[in-house]
Amino acid sequence: MDGNSDRPIGVFDSGVGGLTVVRELMALLPGEDIVYFGDTARVPYGTKSAETVVKFAREDLDFLRSRDVKLIVVACNTASSIALPHLADDSDIPVIGVLLPGARSAAATTHNNRIAVIGTTATINSGAYENALHDIYDGLEIMSHPCPLFVSLAEEGWVDDDVAFMIARRYLEPLAGFGADTLVLGCTHYPLLKSVISRVMGDGVVLVDSATETAAEVRETLASSGLLSESDSGGNIYVYLSDIPYRFREVGERFLGRPIENVEQVKGPGGKESEGECRDMTAGRAASSGR
Amino acid sequence: MDGNSDRPIGVFDSGVGGLTVVRELMALLPGEDIVYFGDTARVPYGTKSAETVVKFAREDLDFLRSRDVKLIVVACNTASSIALPHLADDSDIPVIGVLLPGARSAAATTHNNRIAVIGTTATINSGAYENALHDIYDGLEIMSHPCPLFVSLAEEGWVDDDVAFMIARRYLEPLAGFGADTLVLGCTHYPLLKSVISRVMGDGVVLVDSATETAAEVRETLASSGLLSESDSGGNIYVYLSDIPYRFREVGERFLGRPIENVEQVKGPGGKESEGECRDMTAGRAASSGR
Repeated sequence: MDGNSDRPIGVFDSGVGGLTVVRELMALLPGEDIVYFGDTARVPYGTKSAETVVKFAREDLDFLRSRDVKLIVVACNTASSIALPHLADDSDIPVIGVLLPGARSAAATTHNNRIAVIGTTATINSGAYENALHDIYDGLEIMSHPCPLFVSLAEEGWVDDDVAFMIARRYLEPLAGFGADTLVLGCTHYPLLKSVISRVMGDGVVLVDSATETAAEVRETLASSGLLSESDSGGNIYVYLSDIPYRFREVGERFLGRPIENVEQVKGPGGKESEGECRDMTAGRAASSGR
Repeated sequence: MDGNSDRPIGVFDSGVGGLTVVRELMALLPGEDIVYFGDTARVPYGTKSAETVVKFAREDLDFLRSRDVKLIVVACNTASSIALPHLADDSDIPVIGVLLPGARSAAATTHNNRIAVIGTTATINSGAYENALHDIYDGLEIMSHPCPLFVSLAEEGWVDDDVAFMIARRYLEPLAGFGADTLVLGCTHYPLLKSVISRVMGDGVVLVDSATETAAEVRETLASSGLLSESDSGGNIYVYLSDIPYRFREVGERFLGRPIENVEQVKGPGGKESEGECRDMTAGRAASSGR
């Protein structure tokens, strides 16, 4: 079991937003190695069709499996909402999405049984949160709304100013009027906007960020399978990206909460073919600003 | 020459924004058939590295060449700024970008020799507009600024309201202070925001939208090569997309200015393999909202 338990945890996302989940995993499981894949060449997934999201997510999963991971976290709400059943069926190792942990946490949090959900257009259209919440308790009342501009705001770093507040108000006022006491932040980018979201929703509304809950579920799953790492040399993070975009260092570190050291760009949008060379971010950024 | 001249014009863009160029081509050259490819599975290009933009643009060009087009329009400012030299070198048919026509128009428009340029992060970082403008006249003073949120605003349809105005003001006030009398809208999405952009820049500033100029250059190039269509049955538009995203009908028609009739999804993110089946948009949208 030792050889198995020392393998890394795999995490993928459409881009860098999933690093918020990595941050929680590192906090809860500091001895684990983590391999992260961000499909930055094809980001975002949340505006694209279900068919395309499933195809991309399968390729992301295949990449992580080629890195010999012991468990895979789908740290992307869009992929979790749309592709998780397909992915779990295809996989011989555990696959954990961010959706179910978030739904369980919301159901455990609400007192008035009214839950609001925000996410990408694809996530909200999928109805996956409604289904998961109703599976937990069918007496829940749920109102959901897509907030596509939140992703751009988080990436631009305009997270706590008058523009962010005005956009949050336009998206969230119908939800605030619904009277929910719990709001699910159904996109890994949204926790960066917690402050303005709270101002619009009011103090009485608890914001549920699934990253913390997902990390807890990963720990439980590893523990129950005897797969928790026993190595003394763990805690390394390896970041693979299908594109090293401009401002990656700045944006990525905002999500991870610390500097990112090991970054490698993998060729091919699905990340299937590795370039086999380790480029640091400075090199990647130089390439990205070249002509 | 007849067989050659009746071939369609090829147009590609990272997504649906290039349909603004198709609209101008249809107005100026109503007898021409047009094949459009939008890389909607990997949109946007403007936040990604130069290396990735060149790779994607090459694949888009290859797709159009497989459709036997007589001339190719790169209707994407990011690809025009970063990839055009590579594309033109590889191609045996004319390849026209939107950047040079826009730069020529701006240089011809300015009276005080001060030009402002806005575009995606990748376009602005490339410095391609500065270079093109200075090649035309090195006495021009140029100030440029990326406006990444404008793309999301245009796609959300928030183009002429308080949110759009506030964002435009934050991006454009430094440019307004620069005293330019001409502003290049260096992204195919930006013409949808003309109204708020004008309000911030002031009445004295002329907005240059390269779509009109690009269509004029296409006509000249075709005429000088004897490639203007002489067919009576032309004027058809064929739209190929690598993903048929949710709300494609609404967003696409906003850019094209009329309903889109022939749409086909092509497999593979580069659009290289055709699915060989024609799906109408309703089918595509149903798929996109499925789980």
